[in-house]
Amino acid sequence: MPSYDTNALALAGGVGGAKLALGLAKILTPEQLTVVVNTGDDEVFYGLHVSPDLDTVMYTLAGIANPESGWGITGETFNMLERLSAYGEDTWFGLGDKDLATHIRRTDLLRNGETLSEVTAKLATALGVNHGIVPMTDDSLKTVVDTEIGSLAFQDYFVKHRSEPKANAIRFETDGGASPSPGFDNALNDADIIVYCPSNPYLSVAPILEVAGVRERIKLFSGRRVAVSPIVGGEAIKGPAAKLMAEFGVEPSCVDVAKQYVGLCDLFVIDDVDAGRANDIEALGMDVLVCNTIMNSDEDKTELAGKVLDFALR
Amino acid sequence: MPSYDTNALALAGGVGGAKLALGLAKILTPEQLTVVVNTGDDEVFYGLHVSPDLDTVMYTLAGIANPESGWGITGETFNMLERLSAYGEDTWFGLGDKDLATHIRRTDLLRNGETLSEVTAKLATALGVNHGIVPMTDDSLKTVVDTEIGSLAFQDYFVKHRSEPKANAIRFETDGGASPSPGFDNALNDADIIVYCPSNPYLSVAPILEVAGVRERIKLFSGRRVAVSPIVGGEAIKGPAAKLMAEFGVEPSCVDVAKQYVGLCDLFVIDDVDAGRANDIEALGMDVLVCNTIMNSDEDKTELAGKVLDFALR
Repeated sequence: MPSYDTNALALAGGVGGAKLALGLAKILTPEQLTVVVNTGDDEVFYGLHVSPDLDTVMYTLAGIANPESGWGITGETFNMLERLSAYGEDTWFGLGDKDLATHIRRTDLLRNGETLSEVTAKLATALGVNHGIVPMTDDSLKTVVDTEIGSLAFQDYFVKHRSEPKANAIRFETDGGASPSPGFDNALNDADIIVYCPSNPYLSVAPILEVAGVRERIKLFSGRRVAVSPIVGGEAIKGPAAKLMAEFGVEPSCVDVAKQYVGLCDLFVIDDVDAGRANDIEALGMDVLVCNTIMNSDEDKTELAGKVLDFALR
Repeated sequence: MPSYDTNALALAGGVGGAKLALGLAKILTPEQLTVVVNTGDDEVFYGLHVSPDLDTVMYTLAGIANPESGWGITGETFNMLERLSAYGEDTWFGLGDKDLATHIRRTDLLRNGETLSEVTAKLATALGVNHGIVPMTDDSLKTVVDTEIGSLAFQDYFVKHRSEPKANAIRFETDGGASPSPGFDNALNDADIIVYCPSNPYLSVAPILEVAGVRERIKLFSGRRVAVSPIVGGEAIKGPAAKLMAEFGVEPSCVDVAKQYVGLCDLFVIDDVDAGRANDIEALGMDVLVCNTIMNSDEDKTELAGKVLDFALR
């Protein structure tokens, strides 16, 4: 494993982002990597503050993520939820018993006046994660999907309605604006490269870009900016990205992901199966790396992370 | 089973109180019984509002109480607590995964502005409990034990310190006074008899009597008032009652329990093993019933409840 002389800022959503973040964490030191995570999906369930993407990244880096479900913790039980359902709660959002500790602790600390950044650092440290995982903002910035059945908060759209309603638009609601978290702000100042992990451009990366000043700062960023396409062969590895693209009238492809990042990205990584689209992306002004981007094993993750860094630093 | 033509108000703390309350619930209709429960032990753990005595009574009447531990739900798991401990929380208060649903739901509803009475009714109804279980008050009235190591909130004294520190005094702290809950108020007006369940007189019944106006209203109560001693043969069936009595310089016995209720009680039920103390209690101005008061089986509970009612109504 080569060692890298660079500081990286990785932007991540849920499962796909967490996979590449883990790969990066395996080859960069804690000082070299900050993973900034989407919190547009955060929601209060049953009075508990749930941060789905932060938890997916945190659990993945801690080595306790459930690889089957894509969310939650391995060996999970659902005894609380079963009884909560008996109390008449509509328990469409699956909170496992182990996972609950995260939300209970987070909610308690937030109510005591700590910021989401501070809480996240405490939780991650307790789980043995040394690399920085930071929320995009400590303020509220909520992703709302306008659909044929009305406006839905993200989890409502994604989990309760299984991304089924046709989406017309995605909006982001703030309560008077959302500033970058201190960790995000520092990383934007100090990083040598920015890595867009293979996360949904509309639902995971767009909220991060919506944080005040972020889009402009990434536009003006002096270092290399490299993105990994979450769309492979016209399909999302996971989640509703491809379906949304179709509903927004764009062909679901890595090319259209790249279009979302024009002006914000210099280098674009696509999967071998999409090699034929490299020219289209180069036409957008980005250099393209074609390689395997499917991350099943931990070796896949480390290998892709290495290729991404090599590409950015060559 | 005879049917009774009476409305009973039962005052209960935790395990002992819950046992007799279950016996009463088996022979009185929901219209005939209100169980008023001590909330002086209520505490916020990890941001969740826990009402230990309400839950013990509720779980007991619902038939889901854990008979071994005396608290919580049968077949409980502790996956949340284990992880909460990994997050660095001091998890001396055992919250099981199933039990958690109660506290999460209660906390959520309380934060939404419902009263503890309203929340308790919802929870109990959802568990299939038709008899009224009501908190003594919807206000805060906290039991504090002054000990050799300082003042301790009740759970801190009882659970964390296992009732070990020598107690000097028991105090009740309110935030500007605590009024009877609507259900308690109604039962004080409408009941024909008051039953003191075999609960700790200092820690379970005294807080109920501390609620504004309650001691006076029970003094002036026109119907029969009957108490069952929680002290049998000089020992508490469960909990620190006997230890506290010794620390307060009184001999732990059913006689000294009766002394706590002078002016508040007409009839006193003691166990067969204490038959020799009947005269001492009669000397306090109470009629005495001597019978088995140890409730192991459900039959024991129903039988004692029947004897208590017969005694009160004869």
